Amino acid sequence: MNSYKLRFIPLGGVIGVTKNMYVYELYENEKLRDILIVDCGIGFPLEKELGVDFVIPDVTYLSDKIHWIRAIILSHGHEDHTSALPYHYEALGRPPVFASRLTTAFVQNKFKEFNQRIDLNELVYEKEYRFGLFKINFIRVTHSIPDTFHILIKTPVGNIYHGTDFKLDLTPPYGQHPDFYAITKAGHDGLLCLMSDCLGSDREGLTLSENIVGQTFEDEMRKTKGKFIMTTFSSNISRIRQCVEAAIKFNRKIVFLGRSMKENTRIAAEIGYLPIPESLNTNEVNVMKLSPNKVCIIAAGSQGQFGSALSKLANNRNPNVKIKPGDKVVFSSDPIPGSENEVYALIEELSLMGADVVYSDIQDQLHASGHGNQEDLKFLVRFTDPKYFIPIGGTIRHQHQYQKLVMGLGYKKEQLFLLDEGETVWFDQYKASRGDTIETKNIYVDAYGVGDVGNVVLRDRKTLATEGIVAVFLILDNQGKLTTRPKFLSRGFVYESGEEKLFNEATVQVEKLLKPRGETLLNLNNIRKEVSDILENFFYKKRGRKPLVIVDIIQI
Amino acid sequence: MNSYKLRFIPLGGVIGVTKNMYVYELYENEKLRDILIVDCGIGFPLEKELGVDFVIPDVTYLSDKIHWIRAIILSHGHEDHTSALPYHYEALGRPPVFASRLTTAFVQNKFKEFNQRIDLNELVYEKEYRFGLFKINFIRVTHSIPDTFHILIKTPVGNIYHGTDFKLDLTPPYGQHPDFYAITKAGHDGLLCLMSDCLGSDREGLTLSENIVGQTFEDEMRKTKGKFIMTTFSSNISRIRQCVEAAIKFNRKIVFLGRSMKENTRIAAEIGYLPIPESLNTNEVNVMKLSPNKVCIIAAGSQGQFGSALSKLANNRNPNVKIKPGDKVVFSSDPIPGSENEVYALIEELSLMGADVVYSDIQDQLHASGHGNQEDLKFLVRFTDPKYFIPIGGTIRHQHQYQKLVMGLGYKKEQLFLLDEGETVWFDQYKASRGDTIETKNIYVDAYGVGDVGNVVLRDRKTLATEGIVAVFLILDNQGKLTTRPKFLSRGFVYESGEEKLFNEATVQVEKLLKPRGETLLNLNNIRKEVSDILENFFYKKRGRKPLVIVDIIQI
Repeated sequence: MNSYKLRFIPLGGVIGVTKNMYVYELYENEKLRDILIVDCGIGFPLEKELGVDFVIPDVTYLSDKIHWIRAIILSHGHEDHTSALPYHYEALGRPPVFASRLTTAFVQNKFKEFNQRIDLNELVYEKEYRFGLFKINFIRVTHSIPDTFHILIKTPVGNIYHGTDFKLDLTPPYGQHPDFYAITKAGHDGLLCLMSDCLGSDREGLTLSENIVGQTFEDEMRKTKGKFIMTTFSSNISRIRQCVEAAIKFNRKIVFLGRSMKENTRIAAEIGYLPIPESLNTNEVNVMKLSPNKVCIIAAGSQGQFGSALSKLANNRNPNVKIKPGDKVVFSSDPIPGSENEVYALIEELSLMGADVVYSDIQDQLHASGHGNQEDLKFLVRFTDPKYFIPIGGTIRHQHQYQKLVMGLGYKKEQLFLLDEGETVWFDQYKASRGDTIETKNIYVDAYGVGDVGNVVLRDRKTLATEGIVAVFLILDNQGKLTTRPKFLSRGFVYESGEEKLFNEATVQVEKLLKPRGETLLNLNNIRKEVSDILENFFYKKRGRKPLVIVDIIQI
Repeated sequence: MNSYKLRFIPLGGVIGVTKNMYVYELYENEKLRDILIVDCGIGFPLEKELGVDFVIPDVTYLSDKIHWIRAIILSHGHEDHTSALPYHYEALGRPPVFASRLTTAFVQNKFKEFNQRIDLNELVYEKEYRFGLFKINFIRVTHSIPDTFHILIKTPVGNIYHGTDFKLDLTPPYGQHPDFYAITKAGHDGLLCLMSDCLGSDREGLTLSENIVGQTFEDEMRKTKGKFIMTTFSSNISRIRQCVEAAIKFNRKIVFLGRSMKENTRIAAEIGYLPIPESLNTNEVNVMKLSPNKVCIIAAGSQGQFGSALSKLANNRNPNVKIKPGDKVVFSSDPIPGSENEVYALIEELSLMGADVVYSDIQDQLHASGHGNQEDLKFLVRFTDPKYFIPIGGTIRHQHQYQKLVMGLGYKKEQLFLLDEGETVWFDQYKASRGDTIETKNIYVDAYGVGDVGNVVLRDRKTLATEGIVAVFLILDNQGKLTTRPKFLSRGFVYESGEEKLFNEATVQVEKLLKPRGETLLNLNNIRKEVSDILENFFYKKRGRKPLVIVDIIQI
C-alpha cells in the first residue's frame, strides 16, 4: 500500500498579515507527487521599509519543483492575496490558476498591465476539482470583497480546511451569505487541520455586517448640503457599491478619484458588480459645475497616503475638484496600524478646508471589518472541529490570541501550530509535526523594479532617515597622493551653525590617520573603511549620533 | 395518488411565552391520519391572576381525536414545556412520550407526585423515529437547561423545524454545543417551515455563553468571607452545577434551600448531572455550626416570591439559617417582567440584614439568558432557510420583532405567520395558509385543584385586592322578618375611623329599601341582589370605590 504525507509551507501571510502564499506538498512513498499553491499576494511590511512600495513572496524554494505544481488557487481579489502573481507566474511554470469571478477580472487586468498572459479559470462552486491527488471544493464565505471562498482540500492523508480571510456576514449587501452547510459538512466528514484567518482574534463579539454601512451612508448623505466625499480601500467593491446606491437614491452624480479606485471600479462595473446608471456617471472636470448636493465623490487615499487622490483634495492640489465648506468627507475605513498619524493629519487638513469630516472615532457604523472577530472565529472552529489548527493571516499577537481562543473551546495547545514564514508542518494519517524551516527572504519592489532593494539599502535608508549622512571626499593626485584637506558634505546630521567647527575637528582626525602612511594611498578600499570607522566613532563621541558616513576618493 | 395536508395548532406558547403545547395534524385525502404533540407545559400568565398558581393548556379540541395521537415529545425539562402533562396524560389516551435524559427524570418524578404512571422513553439522538407518517430527528441545541433539542419533523407535505427555546452556546459548561451540521443539513434538505423561539428577538448581538457565569461565581466566592448564597431558577441545573463546582474549589459545604431546589437537584444528582462530593454535602441544620466561609447555600426564590426559601432568609424566618454581615447573596437571574418590585424589595431586605447583595444591575456577568438574541436567531434562519416562519415562545412584541428580523434577512412578510393561541396554519406541498381558530380557554390551577378557579372568582379576587370587601348581614326571625338593624363588616375598604359613620348611613339606605316591603322577606335571592346593588352605588358615590359587596341573610 502506498504511504502519503502532506507538507504545509507558508511562504508568507503568517506573522505579517499580508503577502499571503501557501504551499501544500503531497508526497507518495516519500516522493513529491503534487503541489497546490493557495494565493500569491504582495505584502505591506508592518515595519515600514523606506521607499519600498511592497514586498513579494520568495518562491526560490519552488524553483526546482515546478514540474509538480498542479494549480494555483486565488482565494479572493485583495492585493495581498493576488498581486504578486505577475512577478512569479513565469517562474512557477505557468500552472493553471483558479479564482472566482471578481478575482479573475482583477487578476486579468493586472496581467494586462504587465503585458503577460495567464491560464486563468473562473471556478464553479458546485464542482469538485482534481489537481493530482488533491480534490478541491470551494466554499462561499463573506469578507470585505465579494466572491471570497474557503477551500476544502481533500488529500489521501486527510482533509484540510483553508479558511482564508473571512467574517460570518449573515447579511452581505451583495452576494450570498456563507455556505454554512458546506462548512459544517466539511467538519462532519472529518478534518485533519483548519488553517484559519486570525486577524480579528483580539476583538470581542461578532463582526458587524457589511450592510450596516449602507444605512450610515444614506443617513450622512441626507444631512449633507455640499459635496459628499467617501474614501475607502479601492478593492472594497461592496462598500463602494453601497455608497453608489445611496448616491442613486439622492440623485447625486458619481465621480471616482484616484488611479486604483478608477481601475477597480471600472473592472467591477464591467462584470456587473457595480451597476451605475449612465445618467449619474460623470467626470471630475464637471464636478465644480454641478450643484454641490448633486455630487458624490468616491476617492482613494483612506490611509492618508501622500499623493493620493484624497490628499490632493486636502492640499488643494486637484485642479478640478475643490473642497468647500458644507462638503462632507466620510472615512469608511479604519487606519491600518502604523498609519494613524497620516490619517489624522489628513482629517485635520480636510477640516481646515471647511469640510465636515466623519470618521470611525465619532461614528462607529462607518466601517465594518472584513475579518471575523472572536465569535466568528469560534463559530468556524465549532463548525469544522478539526484535529489541528494553524492560524494564518495575522501577526504573532493574533496567533497567540487565536491559540487562547481555541484552547478556551477545549482544544489542547499541542493541537495548534503557530508558524513563522517558511516554518513547515508535516501531516500523515496519525499526526502532525513540525518540519524543517524553508529559508525565505523579503523581495522588495519599488519604482525601480523587483528585488533591487537589498537589506543594505534598506538599512542605509533607515540610517539616513534617523541619523543623517556625512560624505567625505579624499582628493588624490594622479600619483595617489592626498592633495588637499578632506572635503565634508552633510545632510540631516548637524545644523549648519555647528558644522564648521565639527568638520574642522574631523579633518584633523582624518589627517592624523592618513598622513603617517607616507606619500601614496593605494589600497583605496581599506582607506575608505578606515576613514569611515574613525569618523563614525568621532561623530558618535561628539554628537551621540551615527550618521551614514560615505567616503569617496577622487583622483584628479 | 394520496394527497396530504398538515395543520399546525398552538394550544399555548404563542403570545404568552409559557404554557407551551403544539399540535401537528397530518391529513391524508382530507382525513385525519396522525397527530404529533410537542410539549405540554404550565403557564405563568403575564397579567397576574390572583391566587392562581399557574394555568395549563386547554386540550378540549383533542378530546375526540385521541385515537390519532401517535406521540408526545417534550423538548426540554422546563416546567412551561412539561409540567401540564400529568393533568392531561390520561385524557390524551396515554400516548408514548419521548424526552431526553434530564427531562425524563424530571417528568418521571412529577408523575410520581401525582401517583400516575407514564409511558416515558428516553430518546436516542442518532436515531430517526417514526410516529405514523411523521419521521422525527432530534437535534442537540443549547439552552439554560442541559439536554434541550430541536425537532426535525419530516412529513409527506414537507419538513418542519421545531426550534423551541434555545441559544447558540459555543461553550456550554456541560453537555455538547449545538449540532450545527444537523441544523444546516435540515436546511440543506429543504424546509417548509421554521417554528422559532423568538423571546430574544428584541436584544442585540449574540447571547452570552452560560460558561461566563462560572467564572463570576468563583470571583465572587473568593472575595466572600461569610456565607455564600446563590439564588436562581431551580430548573437551571447548569447554573447550579457551576456554583457547586466553585464551592468545591473553595471547599465550601453545599446546602440547598427550598422545595423545588431540593427536588430538582436531587433528581439531577441521581442521574449524574450534578456530582457533589459526599464530604461537601450537608444539611441546613448544620449551617450555623460551620465556619461561614465554609458554606455555600443555593436557594430558591430568585423572583422574590413570598414564602420562598430566600424570602424566609431575608425575613429571619428560617429557624436554622441566619443572614449575618459578611454574607454574600448572588442573584443569578434577571427579574421576570412583572416581578421587578418583589425582587428589589427582597434585595433591600437582604441588604438590611447586612448581606452584600450582588445582582445583574451591578454585575453583568451573573446571568446569561437561555434564549438566543437577534444574532442567534438570525444564524438559525441562515442555517435552515425555510419557506415559512412561525415565531413561538414569545409575546406579541417578540413576534413582531422576530418578523422584522427575518424580513431584514430578505424574506417577505407573507412568509411569516404570527399566531395567537388556537390560531392554525395549513400546509400543503405548495403553500401555507391560515386555517380556522380552535377555541381555547385558560384552565387555572391553584391550591384547591384544577379548573375550579373560574373567571368570576378571579374577578372577585381582583376586586378584593384593589377595592376591598363589605359584608352585610341581614338577620331575620323564623317568620322571615328583619329583626334588627343590618350588620356591616368590612376589610380593605375604609379605615376604621371613617367606618361607623359610613355604615350608619348605609344602614339607613338598606332599611329604606327593605322596610316598605312589609313584614316578610321571602325571595331571599332578589333581596340579596337589590341590597348589593344599592350598596355598591352608595359606596361608589361616597368613596369613589366599588368594594365587593356580599349580602348574607341569617335566620334565627
